[in-house]
Amino acid sequence: LRTGMPEVIFASGKTIEHVTAIFVRMAQAGGNVLATRVSPECAQAVLAAEPRAVHHVTARCITLEQAVPPQGKGTVAVVCAGTSDLAVAEEAAVTARLMGNTVELIADVGVAGIHRLLAQRGSLQSARVLIVCAGMEGALPTVVGGLVNAPVIAVPTSIGYGASFGGLAALLGMLNTCSPNVCVVNIDNGFGAACIATLINRM
Amino acid sequence: LRTGMPEVIFASGKTIEHVTAIFVRMAQAGGNVLATRVSPECAQAVLAAEPRAVHHVTARCITLEQAVPPQGKGTVAVVCAGTSDLAVAEEAAVTARLMGNTVELIADVGVAGIHRLLAQRGSLQSARVLIVCAGMEGALPTVVGGLVNAPVIAVPTSIGYGASFGGLAALLGMLNTCSPNVCVVNIDNGFGAACIATLINRM
Amino acid sequence: LRTGMPEVIFASGKTIEHVTAIFVRMAQAGGNVLATRVSPECAQAVLAAEPRAVHHVTARCITLEQAVPPQGKGTVAVVCAGTSDLAVAEEAAVTARLMGNTVELIADVGVAGIHRLLAQRGSLQSARVLIVCAGMEGALPTVVGGLVNAPVIAVPTSIGYGASFGGLAALLGMLNTCSPNVCVVNIDNGFGAACIATLINRM
Amino acid sequence: LRTGMPEVIFASGKTIEHVTAIFVRMAQAGGNVLATRVSPECAQAVLAAEPRAVHHVTARCITLEQAVPPQGKGTVAVVCAGTSDLAVAEEAAVTARLMGNTVELIADVGVAGIHRLLAQRGSLQSARVLIVCAGMEGALPTVVGGLVNAPVIAVPTSIGYGASFGGLAALLGMLNTCSPNVCVVNIDNGFGAACIATLINRM
Amino acid sequence: LRTGMPEVIFASGKTIEHVTAIFVRMAQAGGNVLATRVSPECAQAVLAAEPRAVHHVTARCITLEQAVPPQGKGTVAVVCAGTSDLAVAEEAAVTARLMGNTVELIADVGVAGIHRLLAQRGSLQSARVLIVCAGMEGALPTVVGGLVNAPVIAVPTSIGYGASFGGLAALLGMLNTCSPNVCVVNIDNGFGAACIATLINRM
Amino acid sequence: LRTGMPEVIFASGKTIEHVTAIFVRMAQAGGNVLATRVSPECAQAVLAAEPRAVHHVTARCITLEQAVPPQGKGTVAVVCAGTSDLAVAEEAAVTARLMGNTVELIADVGVAGIHRLLAQRGSLQSARVLIVCAGMEGALPTVVGGLVNAPVIAVPTSIGYGASFGGLAALLGMLNTCSPNVCVVNIDNGFGAACIATLINRM
Amino acid sequence: LRTGMPEVIFASGKTIEHVTAIFVRMAQAGGNVLATRVSPECAQAVLAAEPRAVHHVTARCITLEQAVPPQGKGTVAVVCAGTSDLAVAEEAAVTARLMGNTVELIADVGVAGIHRLLAQRGSLQSARVLIVCAGMEGALPTVVGGLVNAPVIAVPTSIGYGASFGGLAALLGMLNTCSPNVCVVNIDNGFGAACIATLINRM
Amino acid sequence: LRTGMPEVIFASGKTIEHVTAIFVRMAQAGGNVLATRVSPECAQAVLAAEPRAVHHVTARCITLEQAVPPQGKGTVAVVCAGTSDLAVAEEAAVTARLMGNTVELIADVGVAGIHRLLAQRGSLQSARVLIVCAGMEGALPTVVGGLVNAPVIAVPTSIGYGASFGGLAALLGMLNTCSPNVCVVNIDNGFGAACIATLINRM
Ligand SMILES: Nc1ncnc2c1ncn2[C@@H]1O[C@H](COP(=O)(O)O)[C@@H](O)[C@H]1O
Ligand SMILES: Nc1ncnc2c1ncn2[C@@H]1O[C@H](COP(=O)(O)O)[C@@H](O)[C@H]1O
Ligand SMILES: Nc1ncnc2c1ncn2[C@@H]1O[C@H](COP(=O)(O)O)[C@@H](O)[C@H]1O
Ligand SMILES: Nc1ncnc2c1ncn2[C@@H]1O[C@H](COP(=O)(O)O)[C@@H](O)[C@H]1O
Ligand SMILES: [Mg+2]
Ligand SMILES: [Mg+2]
Ligand SMILES: [Mg+2]
Ligand SMILES: [Mg+2]
Ligand SMILES: [Mg+2]
Ligand SMILES: [Mg+2]
Ligand SMILES: [Mg+2]
Ligand SMILES: [Mg+2]
Repeated sequence: LRTGMPEVIFASGKTIEHVTAIFVRMAQAGGNVLATRVSPECAQAVLAAEPRAVHHVTARCITLEQAVPPQGKGTVAVVCAGTSDLAVAEEAAVTARLMGNTVELIADVGVAGIHRLLAQRGSLQSARVLIVCAGMEGALPTVVGGLVNAPVIAVPTSIGYGASFGGLAALLGMLNTCSPNVCVVNIDNGFGAACIATLINRM
Repeated sequence: LRTGMPEVIFASGKTIEHVTAIFVRMAQAGGNVLATRVSPECAQAVLAAEPRAVHHVTARCITLEQAVPPQGKGTVAVVCAGTSDLAVAEEAAVTARLMGNTVELIADVGVAGIHRLLAQRGSLQSARVLIVCAGMEGALPTVVGGLVNAPVIAVPTSIGYGASFGGLAALLGMLNTCSPNVCVVNIDNGFGAACIATLINRM
Repeated sequence: LRTGMPEVIFASGKTIEHVTAIFVRMAQAGGNVLATRVSPECAQAVLAAEPRAVHHVTARCITLEQAVPPQGKGTVAVVCAGTSDLAVAEEAAVTARLMGNTVELIADVGVAGIHRLLAQRGSLQSARVLIVCAGMEGALPTVVGGLVNAPVIAVPTSIGYGASFGGLAALLGMLNTCSPNVCVVNIDNGFGAACIATLINRM
Repeated sequence: LRTGMPEVIFASGKTIEHVTAIFVRMAQAGGNVLATRVSPECAQAVLAAEPRAVHHVTARCITLEQAVPPQGKGTVAVVCAGTSDLAVAEEAAVTARLMGNTVELIADVGVAGIHRLLAQRGSLQSARVLIVCAGMEGALPTVVGGLVNAPVIAVPTSIGYGASFGGLAALLGMLNTCSPNVCVVNIDNGFGAACIATLINRM
Repeated sequence: LRTGMPEVIFASGKTIEHVTAIFVRMAQAGGNVLATRVSPECAQAVLAAEPRAVHHVTARCITLEQAVPPQGKGTVAVVCAGTSDLAVAEEAAVTARLMGNTVELIADVGVAGIHRLLAQRGSLQSARVLIVCAGMEGALPTVVGGLVNAPVIAVPTSIGYGASFGGLAALLGMLNTCSPNVCVVNIDNGFGAACIATLINRM
Repeated sequence: LRTGMPEVIFASGKTIEHVTAIFVRMAQAGGNVLATRVSPECAQAVLAAEPRAVHHVTARCITLEQAVPPQGKGTVAVVCAGTSDLAVAEEAAVTARLMGNTVELIADVGVAGIHRLLAQRGSLQSARVLIVCAGMEGALPTVVGGLVNAPVIAVPTSIGYGASFGGLAALLGMLNTCSPNVCVVNIDNGFGAACIATLINRM
Repeated sequence: LRTGMPEVIFASGKTIEHVTAIFVRMAQAGGNVLATRVSPECAQAVLAAEPRAVHHVTARCITLEQAVPPQGKGTVAVVCAGTSDLAVAEEAAVTARLMGNTVELIADVGVAGIHRLLAQRGSLQSARVLIVCAGMEGALPTVVGGLVNAPVIAVPTSIGYGASFGGLAALLGMLNTCSPNVCVVNIDNGFGAACIATLINRM
Repeated sequence: LRTGMPEVIFASGKTIEHVTAIFVRMAQAGGNVLATRVSPECAQAVLAAEPRAVHHVTARCITLEQAVPPQGKGTVAVVCAGTSDLAVAEEAAVTARLMGNTVELIADVGVAGIHRLLAQRGSLQSARVLIVCAGMEGALPTVVGGLVNAPVIAVPTSIGYGASFGGLAALLGMLNTCSPNVCVVNIDNGFGAACIATLINRM
């Protein structure tokens, strides 16, 4: 899987010093570098040490682009239901772009207002792979899956309250999908969704 | 709640003799009678003892109509996603009819094929109350809720396999709905949904 | 659902700047505005930007009334078991009032002291719809449902400790209700309960 | 605990031969004998081998009384919400009687129809200890607890469907009780409830 | 239940001002007062407002004794497995003392070192009622229950890590007890255990 | 998704008559037909009514091939850990073949005997997409994912006992995968895995 | 692990023909053979095909001994709380014997009657490794662990009812053990416990 | 178990003063002392009071060595999948060393990159006992178990996000292991794993 993929740091649970040191070392190796789940403080430290890096605030990611990855053949659509799921959707979008994909982000479409979603049918159907992120709108991947002929990667998010149980409700809803072109990754795993989408988009 | 409501027997877990005896006794009282969760063998025994009763096979219900209940002001729409959820939807429909409602049953509409659902928009929007039953299509009540301006009563069903966990996935999805006109009753409780719909439709 | 309903902001998880900006923009549109789950700091910022807004402290809500919504036909009773469930009950009450309902709040009635509840029977029975919020008193909606002939919307709250599991115990108790006029919304969802009550009260 | 208590066989999971053999051996020892969770076939075999034994059909118990246990000082009330919980309530009642208690069984009182329960207030308040069994009426022990000044032993039952999850909903509701005179035993454990009630009633 | 019982405040989730105000008002009524789950800051405020009150640090309780409650007939033993469960055990002990019981606290006995427990057999067997609090030692009530002839009230605590799941492991272990003289209250509910123990000890 | 896909019947929960009738009707439409989760009795009835159909015993599937679907560009590898997971793996294989893919089935490789798996590295690495089915070997998709550069679709199976909890353990293990080329479908959903694999293999 | 270990068949979920065929083939290879989870009908078929095999009824196992395994250095004690857990304990004992260990089975000792357990202290302390199987006596391994200086392998069993949740209560209790010489295997996995005990007893 | 084992303090949940006082008292008794789950602040206080103590930062442990424990006969390998699980692995390693074992720590081997693990086969196979700690790599113990002939003690860690549910996913994966030489301890319980490994390594 390594060919043409960036080096990746999962920053959550690591000290700022540790993340900075790994980032700098990876940057010196000459390839692209991605850090995910980066706190604002950590981002500041990394950018101080490696000024060429870019901080994607909503995505909580830092990227360093210094190499050209293999290019995806089509567009990866990243879909989410509202501003609350945007962090996960942006993690997916930033990751997919760094991995050589053209990304179209379609935010603020949900199943409770199906017309806004249907209005995006053109964009959805022209994508080669789709990533759909949702916390309270656990059915969004199923509805999108019914509108397109391409593979859909569903990302449950931990956004919600009460009986959302940290993303469990969305996860179960997505696994029980009736659209047979939908598969699922871990709660909040925008990064992983982008990896699979990249592999598919290169085929 | 009793005024104008039938007498009700929840047959599950009761012996055939017990159900038959209660049914006959209630029939003699002169009001309408409803038995739910009736096995085919039990239905045979009840109909032998009370030949005026009607057995609704798919709904697993027996009804005896001998009184005129208060009439609902509009139509109660009962919606489900496929033949698998039909037993629960029919329990709701049979109950609502016996309680004085005009019922329109809209089966075989799901979120994975949104166009069949949108094709029913007319029927959905002309209902005064809606009951939506779904097992694997946990998002159906939310989508329906977004299309109408009336209260939607969601009934999760125990239909499904794997991570549906006996209706839990559908239940959680419905509780996390983004359509603010949706409320939820117990898994498989078509009867209860019809009771609330009746109260609302009489207002 | 939009007709005669306020614009709504769910503030939890949004930055103060974001909430304030949306609130001001919505206020300029001329309709009523509601923000829920507002922290004290956020409320201060919103009121500074829009001095006509009102902060409901216990309810954690901000409202701006500048339009007259369709009026509910009867009273919405909002019932809770003690001071601990008051925040959720007040969210329901503030929302229902802004949506054009006369609201009667009946706090501090519980099932462990049934007589205080029975003493309120008059108020309960004169309501056209009831909202019952409870965390440790998961049976309150069932008991209330047995006393009235109107629809009851049950709101489990996350109040409790130990085996309350963040509202799960109350939620399950309410779903298993034996009163067939009770339906349920998500844990802590006072807002959603008020929306359904409003729809019903306008019928 | 042994003094004045019968020998007990938990028949579930044991072969008919095994249960019969143990029962006969215990009978020969001269004390009282109790077998619980006995199938009809097993009961037939035991009664054939020990004709003095009595089969309590609803309770699924067999008893042999041949000794006089210490007598309880007051009445043990066994309360349940309907015919569905009767098996567990009868297990408690049969056990408590064999252990020397005067037992009053109060069936068919529930929280959804609070007046039938209040009509029994006299019986409830004259009991020295109370056992309350309920599956879908998880709040019954709390309401009873609020009406009396005596210890209440709550027994969740596995009766119910959907989100009752085999008695889990009732169990959680009972643990979250607001009546401080309520304690809980395992789901369906009518026997255990009777043991504690016996100890208390002898004090 | 009220006769001879103190007024009780469950301080968790209430503001310091609120707790102080209720405490002072209750104190003026002349009876005994108990506040549980009190933070150190809250305790300071209450004691400033009512200097006769006593702060029990480990128990996180405040008591005010100004009336003589009915006296228990024997000793209530409060047993726990180690310093970690002491807060819950002390809540039980403080409550039981205020309710008129002689209390013997037996800390630091566990099932992994059965001999220290057996060494306390004398104290255990001379108690009239026992309260056993344990988080990781979920079997302690069962072992104690096997050693004595009196009722045992088991209190699971939320102490533990990993698969203790906030007291769930202890709770399930206690419900599955093989000692028929054991009943259970909510996780961490030392107060409730003391209430039942008091009722029993007065019989 | 419909283009070039067979008509599909999920037989579980449908009567034999119902399945046979749908199968015959679909067969007459001229396309390929697939029935999954077919019992032996049901298969007999379908084959009597449509003798051209083929019964795949282990896969519990019936297929009718009368049209040529679009052909996949490479091989789909279907991998499982032992005979116990074979039913799910065969469902995936039969489905994928009917949808126009060349399928290589690699059974009896597990993580506890890593060398048998490594011996298949050639086959694994030459596949264009992989489907990995496992119940007790929840880590198999992760290990396979680390060996290949292609997308891996993981199918948890309900095979196992004790703490496998009907496939939940495998499902959670697969969602927590460290191989970023792995996505997951519902427990036992061999059919769905084959659908996504088909879409990808046609790209 | 293979050296000196029998070939093993896990019969659950396999057809009688399949189990018989594998057993015969393994028998011909000349080593010892073990089949676990064998139904009575399956046992009959295997013994008909391989008359030298032995059926252990309670253990639900079939063994064929035709080779001498490496001998364990000490005794393996297999402990359980009652007849209900005997099937799992016997599976462990039969497996351990076939793997070359001297086994001492200590049944019918539990934590609710600690003296019967203490009476076995001699046997327990002379074992080199211990296997403790329990369903409702989840604390038995902890108590045994406190009495001995040797490693204890805990096997939760699925025996129990109500809140035992198929062995989950016992499993959680064992994982939370306070005896640091206790480790745990899967629910009902007597076989696995014997494998580890064998490895340790050969050291 | 006490012979040759250090005195141990589980610092989590205890005050700094309490931990320091116990540590000093135990140090005076002359044996070795171990404190686990020590915060940096607590460590500073203990080292100020007992300057001979050593703080193991990653392991969150403090040790005092002043006695020679019985020596293990071989090497204990402590294996983990990445820096995230290192805290638990180091707790196991520090504990095992203080208990007289030679420890080899093998970090940064995982199942997604099986070759790094296979490259360590020599070290793994020369260990007498193995401890394998993993959070997201729940299959690591199974794979290691397949490579060695020695007992493997699996320690699930609480590291992960989303569907890892605080270590539950890893725990279930390890209990369902197909390697019969694997047993499991509580989530994050590196200490307990080291205790059992010590007992085995002394045999
Ligand atoms: N959301 C995520 N972002 C980045 N890496 C992730 C994520 N989820 C899982 N990972 C995995 O974590 C690895 C990096 O972890 P680490 O070596 O601890 O920094 C990556 O190679 C990924 O396979
Ligand atoms: N699906 C259902 N069908 C009929 N009754 C139900 C259902 N679910 C709950 N119930 C309640 O069960 C009561 C009848 O129970 P029973 O007296 O045991 O026959 C009715 O009054 C309903 O309130
Ligand atoms: N641990 C506890 N301490 C005090 N009260 C409790 C506890 N658990 C439940 N309660 C109940 O909470 C009531 C006081 O609640 P509040 O009126 O909110 O202060 C008491 O009457 C008790 O019935
Ligand atoms: N209780 C058990 N009895 C026998 N085998 C088991 C048991 N639990 C897990 N197994 C594993 O199952 C394998 C045999 O499975 P199989 O090849 O399907 O017959 C053995 O090698 C064991 O590792
Ligand atoms: Mg969302
Ligand atoms: Mg459905
Ligand atoms: Mg409450
Ligand atoms: Mg009931
Ligand atoms: Mg403890
Ligand atoms: Mg498997
Ligand atoms: Mg047991
Ligand atoms: Mg890990």
